[in-house]
Amino acid sequence: MANGIPALDRLVDEFRKMPSIGNKSAERLAFYVLGLEDKDVKGLADAIINAHERIHQCSVCRNLTEDEVCPICKNDKRDRSIICVVEDPRDVAAIERTHEFNGLYHVLHGVISPINGIGPEELTIKELLARLSDNTVNEIIMATNPTVEGEATAMYISRLLKPLGISVSRLAYGIPVGADLEYADEVTLSRALEGRREI
Amino acid sequence: MANGIPALDRLVDEFRKMPSIGNKSAERLAFYVLGLEDKDVKGLADAIINAHERIHQCSVCRNLTEDEVCPICKNDKRDRSIICVVEDPRDVAAIERTHEFNGLYHVLHGVISPINGIGPEELTIKELLARLSDNTVNEIIMATNPTVEGEATAMYISRLLKPLGISVSRLAYGIPVGADLEYADEVTLSRALEGRREI
Repeated sequence: MANGIPALDRLVDEFRKMPSIGNKSAERLAFYVLGLEDKDVKGLADAIINAHERIHQCSVCRNLTEDEVCPICKNDKRDRSIICVVEDPRDVAAIERTHEFNGLYHVLHGVISPINGIGPEELTIKELLARLSDNTVNEIIMATNPTVEGEATAMYISRLLKPLGISVSRLAYGIPVGADLEYADEVTLSRALEGRREI
Repeated sequence: MANGIPALDRLVDEFRKMPSIGNKSAERLAFYVLGLEDKDVKGLADAIINAHERIHQCSVCRNLTEDEVCPICKNDKRDRSIICVVEDPRDVAAIERTHEFNGLYHVLHGVISPINGIGPEELTIKELLARLSDNTVNEIIMATNPTVEGEATAMYISRLLKPLGISVSRLAYGIPVGADLEYADEVTLSRALEGRREI
């Protein structure tokens, strides 16, 4: 825009750098900030600084946490023989919401993607292998996304693990619950047929 | 969401308060902040605090500025006999971009809207009338939005100004340049017919 108000232009620029925020949204957010009470502006700025300072990776599973070891890794009631491998901390939150998994996690922080210059050494695969050395783990669930990169990453890691005698599984593919068969894409539908079960 | 990471939850909450930011976007923005370099986080927080501290209303036209009087009001080359009345500082920026208007502005900071409990005394109408007391102004352009509230506000102000012998005009209505006639709504189209000009 360029309002002739440098402090405003700078704020709009900062918001525009954020993901999925365009010119108009950045402007709207900037005006929102201008309209806040003093204490709410401090609250917003503090929340930003504070989150960035306090949150780091769990030294075991690489999920985000404010502690040295995250609450899931510290929890004695979780099954230590099974690890669910995900791409991203948000995936941990999604799986936790199902209340169906009581094992541990490992967060890769990405997927292997040669196009974006991300090789296996950029991910936390070394750290995953280190966790397997004491033989308490006997199953790994690969819960990377059902994308080309997610698949390739799951395959790559499973090949590393097989020789260690650890069972490696993959999340089931199929039609999403509540979806309409008519609108399912062919690949999903053929995977659903392939994976059919007796009832 | 609830990640079990209080600093993250707090940041997501702060972003969720912003206009047109839902749960998913708030989460995405929070993860963007976590991924920033130290200095970029400081830059973002500073821009927020700084903009809020420095920007206030021009003592003359009520547009936003970092100075006591804004650059437009201070500019000797602007025509002081004509004032364009707008709802919002963003409208000043929009009109300035046309480079077609060389007068001054007056920002109302809203429109009369009984439903939202906003009466004339909530707007900067008193300040507008005060600016007219020295008789340098002889035309007012009402450039409020073409909404019910914008119209009503324009009418209200024009009735206050007429007795002062000041000419009051309204922006022209019509089909937007580059738009397709076929898709113009009936009201716009009938206004465009009504306002037709000889060529």
